[in-house]
Amino acid sequence: MTNMDKLYEAVAARGPVCVGLDTDFSYLPEGFAKAELTAGENIVRFNQAIVDATKSVAGCFKVQIAYYESLGLDGLNAYKKTLDYVKATGVPVIADIKRGDIAKTAEMYAKAHFEGDFEADFITLAPYMGLDSIKPYMPFVEEKGKGVFVLVRTSNPGAKDFEYEKLADGRHVYDMVGDKLNAMGKSCMGEHGYSSLGLVIGGTHIEEAAEIRARYKDSFFLIPGYGAQGGTAEDIAQYLSAGNGGVVNSSRGILLAYKKQPGVEFAQAAYNECVNMKEAIKNACDRL
Amino acid sequence: MTNMDKLYEAVAARGPVCVGLDTDFSYLPEGFAKAELTAGENIVRFNQAIVDATKSVAGCFKVQIAYYESLGLDGLNAYKKTLDYVKATGVPVIADIKRGDIAKTAEMYAKAHFEGDFEADFITLAPYMGLDSIKPYMPFVEEKGKGVFVLVRTSNPGAKDFEYEKLADGRHVYDMVGDKLNAMGKSCMGEHGYSSLGLVIGGTHIEEAAEIRARYKDSFFLIPGYGAQGGTAEDIAQYLSAGNGGVVNSSRGILLAYKKQPGVEFAQAAYNECVNMKEAIKNACDRL
Repeated sequence: MTNMDKLYEAVAARGPVCVGLDTDFSYLPEGFAKAELTAGENIVRFNQAIVDATKSVAGCFKVQIAYYESLGLDGLNAYKKTLDYVKATGVPVIADIKRGDIAKTAEMYAKAHFEGDFEADFITLAPYMGLDSIKPYMPFVEEKGKGVFVLVRTSNPGAKDFEYEKLADGRHVYDMVGDKLNAMGKSCMGEHGYSSLGLVIGGTHIEEAAEIRARYKDSFFLIPGYGAQGGTAEDIAQYLSAGNGGVVNSSRGILLAYKKQPGVEFAQAAYNECVNMKEAIKNACDRL
Repeated sequence: MTNMDKLYEAVAARGPVCVGLDTDFSYLPEGFAKAELTAGENIVRFNQAIVDATKSVAGCFKVQIAYYESLGLDGLNAYKKTLDYVKATGVPVIADIKRGDIAKTAEMYAKAHFEGDFEADFITLAPYMGLDSIKPYMPFVEEKGKGVFVLVRTSNPGAKDFEYEKLADGRHVYDMVGDKLNAMGKSCMGEHGYSSLGLVIGGTHIEEAAEIRARYKDSFFLIPGYGAQGGTAEDIAQYLSAGNGGVVNSSRGILLAYKKQPGVEFAQAAYNECVNMKEAIKNACDRL
């Protein structure tokens, strides 16, 4: 069974919410940090409380390495400890690293994030340099069941600069990228009908989302942008087939939920927000 | 004076060779590693010897973070120590990280690599998500004189998958990316006529290289692929205006030069290779 199969089953069991541990030190509630600990150590304590509170309603966790890199060696130690803590729960974990390089350099990134200190179940990748920026990860996909999610269509304002441009053949740049990655993913299909090569697909308007879902039936989606970045449950429901086939990330919406729930402890608030998000997505899927 | 100005002056003084410290443990000569040290610590000793031997003929150094990430926390400690050692020489240093993300995540990467443990003079970036994957680095460019090199046209086989595809308007994808980045770079010009927003441009055939150089006159180029990846001095000379305006990276060609110079100590062999490379490029420029 591949990690993508395990993720499918996790979503079937607990829903598609991906809890994003993009933890900035400033997110810690007032009085939470202990002065005798480093910033990284305090972030780990915060993350552990979030993981404990949300693991029963999380399809997976996603750890954004940039937040940890920004604290240097202390931060990367916290990154490792956060990954270790999530892995001990058995809930799948995506390392959001968006690395993109080729040949031996890509082999080094694969080694870095699919084994050793920073081992994760899935990583995110950037495709700009071509399919040979994806291939060096495939031995880990084939031999260890690891999975990747590759950027295809994002929904940030700058996506229009390159991704949404039209090619000579009428497709968008992101269609070309998605088509080639989807084709490449046929070589690593899992038991549940999804490839170990997943796609990062941001929210969009309903017609286009339905078209993208139909075009890449066997690609599992990592869907960013719920809440803080403006994606709604209705938009996102289009990407899920009978409620599965993708995970929906929220980071700040969950980590900072306590700011919108006065008097509620931060981990409990995060749990509440996961439940609300899960129900909103389920209701939107049921209405389809 | 911006870091790009300093790099221009370094190239004017010592030539365009960029010594790539993409150091794999297996590159260390037999008997070099000390058993009581970690892999990362041994790599730092090797790098220090390479830096000492080549700094008089290097325009800059480039440290490829993937090789260090692959060793986990020990490797990232070695990455920090390598950067510190290079910075102490005063020779400009490029952190080859190819990060590509947006908004607060990109701000975190900027903080990670333009200050603190991993501070470098320049970083490399990947443009897939659009110009808002570049903008968050600009405060460091404007306030601290930092520089970036963004992927535009690479020369790996997979570059044909996406970068070389044709757009509806007849340009290649990489032309569109290069045009928008070059335009964006006009906001941060240095004294020597080059923007702090540089471009990564791989070797290509002579006519096309001349056209790219003419199109982006005010963009400094980071040119990968010399030697091990097949780029020749003649191809690369097209990218240099009177011998400046770009740096030419070689990693394995320099680090493993000792394997082609029997009986010569590894650091001396690296120096010899830098001198040969510098002369080959100078001769090719002189022939233009």
